[in-house]
Amino acid sequence: MIYMDNAATSWPKPKTVRTAINEALDHAGNPGRGTHSYTVWSSMKLNEVRQKLAKLFCIKNSQRIAFTSNATHALNIAVNLCYGQIVTTAMEHNSVLRPVATRGYYHVNEADANGSLDYDRIRRSITELTGAVVMTHASNVTGEVYDVARIGEYCRKKGILFIVDCAQSAGVVPIDVESMCIDVLCFTGHKGLFGIQGTGGIYVADHVRIRPYMSGGTGSHSFLLRQPTEMPDCFEAGTVNTHGIAALGAGLDYISGIGVGKMQEIHTELWRYFTANARKINGITVYGPEDAGGGMINTGVVSLNVIGHEPGEVSMLLGKEGICTRAGYHCAPLAHKALRTDALGGTVRFSFSHLNTKEEIDTTLYTLKKLFALS
Amino acid sequence: MIYMDNAATSWPKPKTVRTAINEALDHAGNPGRGTHSYTVWSSMKLNEVRQKLAKLFCIKNSQRIAFTSNATHALNIAVNLCYGQIVTTAMEHNSVLRPVATRGYYHVNEADANGSLDYDRIRRSITELTGAVVMTHASNVTGEVYDVARIGEYCRKKGILFIVDCAQSAGVVPIDVESMCIDVLCFTGHKGLFGIQGTGGIYVADHVRIRPYMSGGTGSHSFLLRQPTEMPDCFEAGTVNTHGIAALGAGLDYISGIGVGKMQEIHTELWRYFTANARKINGITVYGPEDAGGGMINTGVVSLNVIGHEPGEVSMLLGKEGICTRAGYHCAPLAHKALRTDALGGTVRFSFSHLNTKEEIDTTLYTLKKLFALS
Repeated sequence: MIYMDNAATSWPKPKTVRTAINEALDHAGNPGRGTHSYTVWSSMKLNEVRQKLAKLFCIKNSQRIAFTSNATHALNIAVNLCYGQIVTTAMEHNSVLRPVATRGYYHVNEADANGSLDYDRIRRSITELTGAVVMTHASNVTGEVYDVARIGEYCRKKGILFIVDCAQSAGVVPIDVESMCIDVLCFTGHKGLFGIQGTGGIYVADHVRIRPYMSGGTGSHSFLLRQPTEMPDCFEAGTVNTHGIAALGAGLDYISGIGVGKMQEIHTELWRYFTANARKINGITVYGPEDAGGGMINTGVVSLNVIGHEPGEVSMLLGKEGICTRAGYHCAPLAHKALRTDALGGTVRFSFSHLNTKEEIDTTLYTLKKLFALS
Repeated sequence: MIYMDNAATSWPKPKTVRTAINEALDHAGNPGRGTHSYTVWSSMKLNEVRQKLAKLFCIKNSQRIAFTSNATHALNIAVNLCYGQIVTTAMEHNSVLRPVATRGYYHVNEADANGSLDYDRIRRSITELTGAVVMTHASNVTGEVYDVARIGEYCRKKGILFIVDCAQSAGVVPIDVESMCIDVLCFTGHKGLFGIQGTGGIYVADHVRIRPYMSGGTGSHSFLLRQPTEMPDCFEAGTVNTHGIAALGAGLDYISGIGVGKMQEIHTELWRYFTANARKINGITVYGPEDAGGGMINTGVVSLNVIGHEPGEVSMLLGKEGICTRAGYHCAPLAHKALRTDALGGTVRFSFSHLNTKEEIDTTLYTLKKLFALS
């Protein structure tokens, strides 16, 4: 089995993630809801994982990180913090586009035919009516890593909220909320951080005004009939996923053992190797920017089409050969409009973890050629 | 170690729950996002668990059940479905009170000094301005099981939305959404259903008009910039907790192996035994209704105070003796006002699972007597 669907969810998880969740089954009580050893174990675990996340993202105060059920949950919280017009991009996932569109009053910056963004144009689209910029750190369709710092600096200068979706980049590409001027960072736990599904979180900088999203029990201020506004309780209504967060902690240790810089190197190299060889095959269209100068970084995501075949068909046939990919629009409709793949049923996406190998890529491309008689 | 904090989170989990989550680590892809074997495994698992939940709650169409991250998330979705005035009760958890109070326009029906509710009074509080009744099936402070069917029938007759929070009762007391006339049922996975934290769900009857809460990727209708309104996608924005849901499935099998009727019997008997013996001790105040006639049912939750001692102190000292309880307000402020424990720092809560024994209760009461020199 060759698993190339890590942008959907990473697999396999490290053995230590398994150990961590089994340990949580032995020890976890309800965190922050008492003083006995099981609740204390959970409270300590949450704080420990918060600190690991803070370290990964260069966050000074780990208490500004709240756990959420996924990146989407975090992004819904984040969009609810915005006032004024929201500026965003065509390369966003529906986890950004739908909350933004549902709220209304927004401007979408288009992408070029490679899915690349024009940063100057994004800056120019920011007006006195703009209250926030929400954008992804990396495309889940092409794997391109965007220069969020360029937009972040500008937003900071203008006093505009800068919200970054790092669902695709966390654990794969270094993220520094300080140097990138990120006010709000939304992440998931089950992709590059190697946790299990049902985990994620949001970082909100000290200077950002908090506005609750969901409300419910927090184990704090019980007589207050509105949601408390202290971080992290404000965004942790109800019992959080302690078991999953324990697993996430093990995932974070695993990543830090390898190093995010090294991760970026491996992911980029797999992407470079795959695209360079796929582009040589007649009958295959590879999307996304070409690494002409050799200096690009990529999260390890390749979108392609076999000319004359629906992406769903290609992915299904690959699946039968034991190669796991994802076909379709990947919940990023405007990205597919930019790539001109909206009328083609999207693309077939191959997304790597550091565990994928060049041999697996060779096998995959060989299988593609064999299945569709390409050369 | 004597664990009596099952109303916060059940412990220990069945061995099969551990097996299920380990199996999910081996097999789970992102559900509904592709056709390869890992995503198919996850999609099938979700549907399988939906069907088990439907069976447990007597729900005809399992596709009307959406997974959420906890009961609080489900209740926030539910409150967002309400129009007009909301009628609720003083025995609610903050997972009901806070969303309702944040929305505004509501009426709270008080409880008596035992935390019991006057159903006729609740009915009378429903006026032509009322759009919904939201209430708990069982108190998380006293364990009393309320006769939700009496309110449900009335709501159905009046065409009013009836929303039930069964965080405390699911898996412990039989629930039948049809005979109880429940339009919306909100549940958690990590208490009486023996799943792990980070799981829960919402059932919405066929005739209820859907209104999305969170929005994001659903793997469906990718070009639609608003959240789809089909169940269950509407309420499953982003990747759900497949690993946790797999564990929940094992929890549901475990419960159905014992039978919910049997569970109710065991929980009620443990409550009866504990309260009967605790009430005999001078210096202890037991809250909640007395089972004079012997016909009451209870989820197995006892709230008490040791006269002259803060509940936090009592719980901490019990914890040092290896007895796990929870002190304080249990996120149910108005319940403590009803019980007149609001000025006492709340109560010490002992909450059982079917795995607790009368011997453990004897030890617990003996320890209480020893610690505070009671007789």
